[in-house]
Amino acid sequence: MLPRVYQDQDCSIARALEAVGERWTLLVVREALNGTRRFDEFQSRLGIARNVLSARLERLVDEGILERLPYQDRPVRFEYLPTHKGRELLPVTLALLAWGDRYYADPAEGPPVVLRHDPCGEDLSARTVCACCGGEASADNVSTRLDRTRSPT
Amino acid sequence: MLPRVYQDQDCSIARALEAVGERWTLLVVREALNGTRRFDEFQSRLGIARNVLSARLERLVDEGILERLPYQDRPVRFEYLPTHKGRELLPVTLALLAWGDRYYADPAEGPPVVLRHDPCGEDLSARTVCACCGGEASADNVSTRLDRTRSPT
Repeated sequence: MLPRVYQDQDCSIARALEAVGERWTLLVVREALNGTRRFDEFQSRLGIARNVLSARLERLVDEGILERLPYQDRPVRFEYLPTHKGRELLPVTLALLAWGDRYYADPAEGPPVVLRHDPCGEDLSARTVCACCGGEASADNVSTRLDRTRSPT
Repeated sequence: MLPRVYQDQDCSIARALEAVGERWTLLVVREALNGTRRFDEFQSRLGIARNVLSARLERLVDEGILERLPYQDRPVRFEYLPTHKGRELLPVTLALLAWGDRYYADPAEGPPVVLRHDPCGEDLSARTVCACCGGEASADNVSTRLDRTRSPT
């Protein structure tokens, strides 16, 4: 169990980071969302120390982000599948990917990983929009509502 | 300078996490996007150790995510403002906030922080969509394109 260093932060970002903010955790989630299932696959794809991977997987199972299921007996072996809660982390990895592509991809080579949006078949460029009006949500147009009671305008 | 432990990971998520994946870093970014400017304000709002905060701010300045500007002389004092690159991290914090609200907010109290989308004036519920077709991007409909050359269908 990791120390809950953000526990005094009454904010869902802080609570989310308690679950997925540890080093390597979001890369393990990325792999799981990409179809990686077994310990050795995670290990070889991430090049992560086995004890660190083991701790991250255990934490993700404890948080209900991954589910640990046996895939063989004698000896029993387990694989890790993303839960619904885990699958709902995709927007987090998409947002990091888009930002990383914008600022850290090699200008000549382009983004190292390209995603496809299956319904339209195009390369996915993710946008974050308001569910209400559909307009872009950006740092220029999002503000903190200080109280929860809506003014009756 | 933090060790670049993800350097063998040729993926923009890994590169993004090199810049913002360290503990506390995204909470410092959240504060900066929320208008916090000065060291003591960051310190009191986050309840973070001063040496850790100092290291995180320095790293964010090095990465071009925050800009450090003097706001007084004698003694010289600095404040930290998000750059354009820093402001473009908003989708990452919005995605974490939405996921944290969904899974960690108190069911009786509701989300501890509510954002407003200024153009429509409504509480912001962020959606991640495909820039091409406008449809939702989810773990069910996003896949990895294995090569960059588009097939000529």
